[in-house]
Amino acid sequence: MSQRDEIAITRERVTIRTVAAHAGVSVAAVSKVLRNAYGVSEALRSRVQTSIGTLGYRPSRTARGLRGSTFTIGLLLVDIRNPFLPEVIDGVNGVLAPSHYSAMIGVGEAKAQLETSLIESMIDYKMDGLILVAPRLPSEIISRFAEQIPIVAVGYHDPTAVNFDTVNCDDQQGATLAVEAFIERGYCRISMLTLGSREGHRVSVVRQREIGYRQTMEAAGLAAEIDIHSIPVASPEREESMRAFLSRPDRPEAVFCWSDIDAVTFLNVAAEMGIRVPEDLAVIGYDNSPTAALSLINLASIDQSGRALGVLATETLLSRIEGREAPLALANAPSFIARRSLGRTKTS
Amino acid sequence: MSQRDEIAITRERVTIRTVAAHAGVSVAAVSKVLRNAYGVSEALRSRVQTSIGTLGYRPSRTARGLRGSTFTIGLLLVDIRNPFLPEVIDGVNGVLAPSHYSAMIGVGEAKAQLETSLIESMIDYKMDGLILVAPRLPSEIISRFAEQIPIVAVGYHDPTAVNFDTVNCDDQQGATLAVEAFIERGYCRISMLTLGSREGHRVSVVRQREIGYRQTMEAAGLAAEIDIHSIPVASPEREESMRAFLSRPDRPEAVFCWSDIDAVTFLNVAAEMGIRVPEDLAVIGYDNSPTAALSLINLASIDQSGRALGVLATETLLSRIEGREAPLALANAPSFIARRSLGRTKTS
Repeated sequence: MSQRDEIAITRERVTIRTVAAHAGVSVAAVSKVLRNAYGVSEALRSRVQTSIGTLGYRPSRTARGLRGSTFTIGLLLVDIRNPFLPEVIDGVNGVLAPSHYSAMIGVGEAKAQLETSLIESMIDYKMDGLILVAPRLPSEIISRFAEQIPIVAVGYHDPTAVNFDTVNCDDQQGATLAVEAFIERGYCRISMLTLGSREGHRVSVVRQREIGYRQTMEAAGLAAEIDIHSIPVASPEREESMRAFLSRPDRPEAVFCWSDIDAVTFLNVAAEMGIRVPEDLAVIGYDNSPTAALSLINLASIDQSGRALGVLATETLLSRIEGREAPLALANAPSFIARRSLGRTKTS
Repeated sequence: MSQRDEIAITRERVTIRTVAAHAGVSVAAVSKVLRNAYGVSEALRSRVQTSIGTLGYRPSRTARGLRGSTFTIGLLLVDIRNPFLPEVIDGVNGVLAPSHYSAMIGVGEAKAQLETSLIESMIDYKMDGLILVAPRLPSEIISRFAEQIPIVAVGYHDPTAVNFDTVNCDDQQGATLAVEAFIERGYCRISMLTLGSREGHRVSVVRQREIGYRQTMEAAGLAAEIDIHSIPVASPEREESMRAFLSRPDRPEAVFCWSDIDAVTFLNVAAEMGIRVPEDLAVIGYDNSPTAALSLINLASIDQSGRALGVLATETLLSRIEGREAPLALANAPSFIARRSLGRTKTS
């Protein structure tokens, strides 16, 4: 017998049942404490934790039979560079930390095939549930996976989802806040920089922000000024496209950018071209990233509180794991953060 | 029988053995193609891939018996915000993409307990191997885990490791490049900003950079000028500590910062205090992050090529998974990226 096998067997001797017997409570009660579920008394928690400590128990990730609980949540991220995502992870970990759950992360790189493969792995691993952040997969596919595992999608707008939950910040509203901030300061020629064609779905946050931009421009009688410019994802095409946009004879006076990640680069390209922000060009980004807040950057932005979304998504997933079946479509409200890149004082 | 069970059974019918039989090759040959191992002929690859496509085979993550191959690599990151890490992930994914491997990520948040729990989960999940990036765990503990699973540590300096591999960029050399760049430009009063006390181990990249700073100052006859200032990890203490440092009557003329993540904030604090960079203060960071490269920031930095480290770590792990037992301690050479924050032209 190899050392590895010995270790596995030694570990398996202490199970959730052993803990329950030692503490003199039910297996369900131990499970509740492990999950940090609502309504657990301090006395019960303390009793079970003492037994866990005495027995040296830790939840096994591969124990079958025990209602499939591996106490692991899969977190699928669209990429790793968007400054919004660390906030979401912090929110998720903040909810999981007091429980015995931990999160395992996959990075889908905005590729449907890689997303599929990672979700399949997470299902194979019998994780307890999945949080998908801005997935590229169509709703039908997510719905099919949701038959096998509890799923919450974040940054994914599908109000018709029936077997998984959605948690969003209201992206149309975020765009409206940005456009209205420009209009209140007297700007009319307001363009939007958006993400290139890889983001095809209406469910995506980017398309929702475009809808919000259009509707707000139309409502303000600025339909003729609507101008949405797509920026490629990869450098150096991204910077070249921004340079071409800024070289247009009809360059706008204000630009709403779908994300800080592009807005910061856009500010930088403008500076390299000798275009002064905000005197010659006003800019608003999205995500209120740490970089936007630097005085050297000073970028106005929309705050969608990734942390709050991470908290909400995790709580929603845990309630689904606990047995809720009715779908939830939750939306937080975004807020506007004024900074120097906005220029002008408010006209009233 | 539930739908979930049906799906599981349907999937399990096609195994690596079925594929081998269909392609008329050995199981070992299929395994080699799946791993994208060296020395696989194009003919064999094409034959096996055709069978995989025809049969709709995908490697099962939980298949036991098959030499423990789940075709998943665990990647443990110290945090998610350091701009160095996305590069490492890109490097890892770049090597894995042509194979059937994928990476599952845990974020240890620089907490030994969370790191332990995530590593245990990855072992429970029977992942094929682990890449630990800048782990906080002491070498003895990593060595104990390495008895159960192949491990490569990145950003972890332990030349005495016997049962796991280390892959680093030479951090002492990186600090030397920074200090020498200052000295060549005539600076003498050169301080170092380093990371607070959570990083206690000599194995850490931060301590190695401190050693490089000290040795280079001493070698240049500047031992009397050695000044290492610790910065707390969390805001707003971090910014306050930087402000206090910059308010000192003996403020240095040049500062080498352990990471861009702090150097960018440091530039920002200096700007807020009306201290001109580089006229009043020269700064060099570490990691050559995208933010450092912005013209609005223009921060000189040390490039340790996270991508190259990710590639090297993955190749090293795969060779250990394939059976190599002799430990490797690999080190890449860093390079210096001059930018405006350096000030002065080189004196020769």
